[in-house]
Amino acid sequence: MTEKIKNPINNRKEITINKLKGLGQSIIEDVENKEIPSLKIPSRGTGNIVYDENKRYYVLGDRYGKRSLGNVKQIKKIGQMMYVSNFCKDLVNREKTATLREMYYVSEGWGMSFSDQNESNILAEDLEVTLGASREDLGLMPEEDGASVYGNITLQEGEVEINALKSGKSGYTISPTIDEVDFVDHNVERVIAVETMGMFHRMVQEKAYDKFNTLIVGLKGQAARATRRFLKRVSTELKLPVYICNDGDPWGFHIAMVIISGSAKLAHVNHDLATPDAKFLGVTASDIINYDLPTDPLKEVDIMRLKELAKDPRYKNKQWQNEIKKMLKIGKKAEQQAFSKYGLEYVVDTYFPEKLENI
Amino acid sequence: MTEKIKNPINNRKEITINKLKGLGQSIIEDVENKEIPSLKIPSRGTGNIVYDENKRYYVLGDRYGKRSLGNVKQIKKIGQMMYVSNFCKDLVNREKTATLREMYYVSEGWGMSFSDQNESNILAEDLEVTLGASREDLGLMPEEDGASVYGNITLQEGEVEINALKSGKSGYTISPTIDEVDFVDHNVERVIAVETMGMFHRMVQEKAYDKFNTLIVGLKGQAARATRRFLKRVSTELKLPVYICNDGDPWGFHIAMVIISGSAKLAHVNHDLATPDAKFLGVTASDIINYDLPTDPLKEVDIMRLKELAKDPRYKNKQWQNEIKKMLKIGKKAEQQAFSKYGLEYVVDTYFPEKLENI
Repeated sequence: MTEKIKNPINNRKEITINKLKGLGQSIIEDVENKEIPSLKIPSRGTGNIVYDENKRYYVLGDRYGKRSLGNVKQIKKIGQMMYVSNFCKDLVNREKTATLREMYYVSEGWGMSFSDQNESNILAEDLEVTLGASREDLGLMPEEDGASVYGNITLQEGEVEINALKSGKSGYTISPTIDEVDFVDHNVERVIAVETMGMFHRMVQEKAYDKFNTLIVGLKGQAARATRRFLKRVSTELKLPVYICNDGDPWGFHIAMVIISGSAKLAHVNHDLATPDAKFLGVTASDIINYDLPTDPLKEVDIMRLKELAKDPRYKNKQWQNEIKKMLKIGKKAEQQAFSKYGLEYVVDTYFPEKLENI
Repeated sequence: MTEKIKNPINNRKEITINKLKGLGQSIIEDVENKEIPSLKIPSRGTGNIVYDENKRYYVLGDRYGKRSLGNVKQIKKIGQMMYVSNFCKDLVNREKTATLREMYYVSEGWGMSFSDQNESNILAEDLEVTLGASREDLGLMPEEDGASVYGNITLQEGEVEINALKSGKSGYTISPTIDEVDFVDHNVERVIAVETMGMFHRMVQEKAYDKFNTLIVGLKGQAARATRRFLKRVSTELKLPVYICNDGDPWGFHIAMVIISGSAKLAHVNHDLATPDAKFLGVTASDIINYDLPTDPLKEVDIMRLKELAKDPRYKNKQWQNEIKKMLKIGKKAEQQAFSKYGLEYVVDTYFPEKLENI
């Protein structure tokens, strides 16, 4: 593959600006039409979060709330939303970003400040939902960086071209502004994401990138939004299969599932973040048995969590149901690094090849 | 500066192998001399941790314990230490690394396994202290990666040359194997480390690397060992002044102080990790007053912590004592990002220049 892959979302900036302008325009129009200005804000309550069987992730339903300048209690909220929108428009125009924390401090100068940061965070989320834009599009960046990536992919960030084989042993770090990155070129057949940096470094040392012609992604626990966006983009834009290998316990399962089918809390942005074609590669309860792995007994909290997962629509396929039942039956869990029982190289030399073949 | 800077520690591998061999040799000699084999292990108890006024960090005193094969209770511990030493020798010889977690699982095959990972961790620390080698020298890597670095420095990791201006917006990530990295070239006058990635991204966006001719280091809270080692190396090998700017609260103070004067717990490796010439740049209690920053009231736990710090030998200079007293007096703390009250650019355009001039 040699031709440059166009990032189909480079017009996101323009779309966002138009959405922000449209919001202000709608208020102006209400005034001009001598109507009381109001805004429709889609509901994020649990009753309005729906698992979409076709899309294979949670989406928002069509319920919404109305905020009106005719309601004294809502005047301040609408004013704040206008200020936040204006702040975001300025960010996007100047190609800057700010953290939610910074916005909270900036808001001190607005004359209608928030009582605490929780309030300004919720208002930023209101704006996301109302516009159907992600907070990253609005220039509001999470504090946290994304995963580490190692392997033969070339990315472009502004003027700079980066190859993730040549970024050092800890690889290329996915930045919160991942949507401004272009995929220039790559020479891999797949992506394998692992839960811990311990396993990431193991795979780099054992040259897994070469053996499996793969990108290696070190998730560092629960995947950051930027990581989920990166995986979504390699899946849809580069058509690469994505595999996720985590610890064999309910928490590892769910780190994978949030990448695959998104979270309920972020139903309004799952279309940007969920990668329904990504596959869970292990560690499964079957692996624990087949590889005779060192284990820890399930704790009460693990058992409760597994039972919750069994009822979750995202886990309803037969394979997941079987694995959850099996783990409850054996009463044991195991970590990725447990394969070291058979030597440091075993996980790359034996386990991964067998799992990839079986999938 | 154009000539390549030699990494003076590239013979660390050889030194470590010799230390490991020496340990085995001492046991063999005891046997040959028909003496009961024993080992001297320096004590890490609080009574043996001493603040060294000249070195300006904690060191271990000269107390030690003895482990002897003549003591039935100690036989297993000595056997385990031989296995761990052998495992480490193998790692260093093959230029591999393992996490403590991996070593714990590997030990399952030794026939004298540990009852839990805490036990194997402590034994690895025993080995560090006994040999006077760091766990990284022994190939035992922490899980966690180090800080993010942005700015004009060129590093060499194996065959790969990396420039930290060209590694993407999140910069170059310091890997746990930082001692295998050579400093090739740089064009900076100083290093500024900041506590949060929010502030790191702010500084990158405002081109602080250019304005202050500086490396920007994003600590991500408490600095990882690899980060401390990196800062030590830029301070001693490149002779660059290191400044640390954290939140204005006891936790921010102490993140800086652990970089400057090391921790008591790691007294045995502070000679590799502490950077006594590094300077705390803020946020101070004086800054809170002078810049009229948005604040939060000190909590009970903050007050207790400040009083602890006041008695800590690392904080005994007048400046620290004054700032601690002042913070207790005003009863307030402030975050780095609080400068956004005056606009996103203020911290780079106004605060840092004023602080750097005053230092």
